[in-house]
Amino acid sequence: MSQTSAADPKVSPTADHRDYQALRKRSHECHLLASSASILSWDREVMMPEGGIELRSDQISLLARLYHERMTSPEIGDLIAACEADESLSADPLSPEAVNLREWRRQYDRQVRLPSSLIEEEAALASRGQHAWAEARKNDDFNHFKPFLEKGLDLLKRKAECYGWDDPGEPWDALAEDYEPGCTAAQVAEVFTPLRTDLKSLLDELMGSSTQPSNAFNELKLPQEDQRKFVEFVARSIGFDFHRGRLDVSTHPFCSGTHPGDVRLTTRFHDDNVNDALGSTMHEAGHGMYEQGLPAEHAGTPMGRAVSLGIHESQSRLWENQVGRSRAFWNWLSPRLGEFFGEATSSLSQEDVYAGANRVKPDFIRVEADEATYNMHIMIRFELERAMMNGQLDVADLPGAWKEKYREYLGLDVPDDRRGCLQDVHWSMLSMGYFPTYTLGNLYSAQLFESALEAIPDLESRFERGEFGALKTWLNDNVHAHGQRYRAAELCEHVTGKPLSAEPLLRHLRGKLKPIYGL
Amino acid sequence: MSQTSAADPKVSPTADHRDYQALRKRSHECHLLASSASILSWDREVMMPEGGIELRSDQISLLARLYHERMTSPEIGDLIAACEADESLSADPLSPEAVNLREWRRQYDRQVRLPSSLIEEEAALASRGQHAWAEARKNDDFNHFKPFLEKGLDLLKRKAECYGWDDPGEPWDALAEDYEPGCTAAQVAEVFTPLRTDLKSLLDELMGSSTQPSNAFNELKLPQEDQRKFVEFVARSIGFDFHRGRLDVSTHPFCSGTHPGDVRLTTRFHDDNVNDALGSTMHEAGHGMYEQGLPAEHAGTPMGRAVSLGIHESQSRLWENQVGRSRAFWNWLSPRLGEFFGEATSSLSQEDVYAGANRVKPDFIRVEADEATYNMHIMIRFELERAMMNGQLDVADLPGAWKEKYREYLGLDVPDDRRGCLQDVHWSMLSMGYFPTYTLGNLYSAQLFESALEAIPDLESRFERGEFGALKTWLNDNVHAHGQRYRAAELCEHVTGKPLSAEPLLRHLRGKLKPIYGL
Repeated sequence: MSQTSAADPKVSPTADHRDYQALRKRSHECHLLASSASILSWDREVMMPEGGIELRSDQISLLARLYHERMTSPEIGDLIAACEADESLSADPLSPEAVNLREWRRQYDRQVRLPSSLIEEEAALASRGQHAWAEARKNDDFNHFKPFLEKGLDLLKRKAECYGWDDPGEPWDALAEDYEPGCTAAQVAEVFTPLRTDLKSLLDELMGSSTQPSNAFNELKLPQEDQRKFVEFVARSIGFDFHRGRLDVSTHPFCSGTHPGDVRLTTRFHDDNVNDALGSTMHEAGHGMYEQGLPAEHAGTPMGRAVSLGIHESQSRLWENQVGRSRAFWNWLSPRLGEFFGEATSSLSQEDVYAGANRVKPDFIRVEADEATYNMHIMIRFELERAMMNGQLDVADLPGAWKEKYREYLGLDVPDDRRGCLQDVHWSMLSMGYFPTYTLGNLYSAQLFESALEAIPDLESRFERGEFGALKTWLNDNVHAHGQRYRAAELCEHVTGKPLSAEPLLRHLRGKLKPIYGL
Repeated sequence: MSQTSAADPKVSPTADHRDYQALRKRSHECHLLASSASILSWDREVMMPEGGIELRSDQISLLARLYHERMTSPEIGDLIAACEADESLSADPLSPEAVNLREWRRQYDRQVRLPSSLIEEEAALASRGQHAWAEARKNDDFNHFKPFLEKGLDLLKRKAECYGWDDPGEPWDALAEDYEPGCTAAQVAEVFTPLRTDLKSLLDELMGSSTQPSNAFNELKLPQEDQRKFVEFVARSIGFDFHRGRLDVSTHPFCSGTHPGDVRLTTRFHDDNVNDALGSTMHEAGHGMYEQGLPAEHAGTPMGRAVSLGIHESQSRLWENQVGRSRAFWNWLSPRLGEFFGEATSSLSQEDVYAGANRVKPDFIRVEADEATYNMHIMIRFELERAMMNGQLDVADLPGAWKEKYREYLGLDVPDDRRGCLQDVHWSMLSMGYFPTYTLGNLYSAQLFESALEAIPDLESRFERGEFGALKTWLNDNVHAHGQRYRAAELCEHVTGKPLSAEPLLRHLRGKLKPIYGL
């Protein structure tokens, strides 16, 4: 009986379908090339001596070319078509086979739509654009970057035309598909608009309050070696598995995941900002626990990959903000500071530390922004890049439009372009459609965390005892284990029962920040 | 006039020869694949979390397969033939073009002679053989390893038949070609035989002497972090460039060079053996300075690669032994020990330290052997593997033959196979023809160092002042800069004016060791 079942394709499609197995093997090979390139990139940022840069660029370019050639080979197209013709494979649209086929088709169609001349033009322009941007930022000289951004915008419009977008829709949607599949500018605007209005009121209230939290914790000088031991302890405590990962140092913190068994975080240290090191570490550990939680049996196929950048960011923000800036978390961690920093932290009260980790201050630089104002930085970028892609904003007018929005949303007069529209690398790398994933991450994290709290009502008292396993397991089961089974919006509805909304994030920020500011 | 010259292929062959340029590009691509695999291997030994092993094996296998496919493609064969037909390319046999063509032809012919079934069989057997060997060594159970070594020997004989060898010659020569191109068993024996006789007399003299050097330096307990700073200081002082390299820790020290700009050393630390860490570091730094000294403009072609394992080993041994165990070196370094180890080394005299670094003691284990007895371990292995390849020694008789030779050459009764013929991994990995390169390295290093002393007569007083630049530059100019222009034996004659001989090494050992032993 069991033998008959095993041989019956309706029961076990993977046992027989040669085309599907061939496609899976190709997907795995592509993953081997891409993950080799990932390790080489990680090594470049973290380990490589400076003399290695030239060879390394050539190595990564070759692997990228081999990857692209394999991904777009006609053989792959034929195998996908053959699998699609086999209805048993897609009978259950949530089966691994159906999910993989859906995603292989999506990737293949996108890749073959781009002429290789455009890909080469893009790589060359991105490389020159980044150099021009770095120079322009250093010298506060927007005009030096302007021609590159104009060329880049023209190329991105052509790229969007190649990809195409659904009706109704707009060119921005075609680009965002690379980062947040299925997400449109209209959908983003629908959630961002109420968020902006309510966030503005909250910020006005907080900044107008006579109670302002102490900044003592953020200004303390602490030895970097002590900070390193401290953040490693926290990463381990919240559940990052060091048998399947590492933590190192790089200029810009990041997470590199090539397999659930090999996930690498980086953080950074400043003598006088342990909160930055802690926040960065918990953020990257959140990304890392997502990668470690993906189903290893599907590694190298879409079922073994993260849903989108927005969902990825929800995992990092959840650990950084919902956990790492909560009172319960600091009730556990504050009393342990002395173990790492001796007398250096003994003058701080528990309230100093908790409030310091939650201080809100509108400022010019996105990457240094607090949890609340951060979203304003993102919304400004989204609105500006959308307007540029729609031809409603000329590159020449970008610096002025930037300053106007900072005045309106954050009440700030941006003094120069270095601290204005030249601060981020993304557009110089021809990444448009990327920025909103940061705030989508904040929104998803708040909505997911509310559901986790419903499922595990004593979550916060667990945090007070340093127990984070229940939350991690809940995320493993509800988010990580699905791979790309659901699109981001579907996953949100599947797990939380509701479409994405600005309300949970606003509830989270109001509920936490108003008491700290005596409101 | 200069325009005419540039367009004339006789004057500048590289300007015009399309086939040659195409071949050079292919060679560079193969190098990108091989060097990517090297970095992934380095990462596996030094950085990778344990959970990454499965993906890593697949990544390295895929890159090895892509490398082999590219190296043996018929297109490469056609390009080589087309270049060979163009006489202007080989007009000067020492030109980069002629050297590269010679080596590309050699590699291509070897690679295509191996059927892919044999390569797969070899990879599978080596993998299973290593597991069996590790198990056999752990349990001191030669019979567990015996069937794998028998199969391995059979495969190596078939492999040698595929490669073929020159007449007169023997199967061993065909295998050694992978490690020491152009080297034959007969040539090795011709140098090893007088070395063995004279070394045996010297060892008898030393062991019979009433003066035996202090072992105090080798038994000192020193913190590993202090040892790390100490060996890094020495590596930097002798000329290893940390802008183009790194030093890390691994179980077995090694050097990984992918480009003169990215060369990675590893060493190891024990609480009570700083000499092991220092020797390992200087040894690997010697390998590393060779890699850093190769001509970067020829990277990815034979002209940018090391000559052979024997010449590579000559560079590591020269810095480890000729420099690192010399009196002049210790006259410089002994007074500085306190900077790294404080009071811990203050009880040692300069003589204790120098003599301790040069202590001779016949023992069972090759990797722990001193500079003099080391060569006996190698000669035994060479004689045994040669006899096995020639069918004069059955695998079943290996343990007995091993014990007999240790008694004869080193006066030792090997107590078990764990400390006998099961101690080394090489044969389990199907590496025969490899062992002699260690002693060839010792021989070349002594002969090269005598020439360096002739060219720079005040070399030793430079060492006493901590000045190692003149020696490094001499090696750069006379050895490293040539890439594979000369074969090992040719390079030796070109630089030292004489064929390789056992005399310089014997002079070096006698001249140094006899005074230490009061003879």
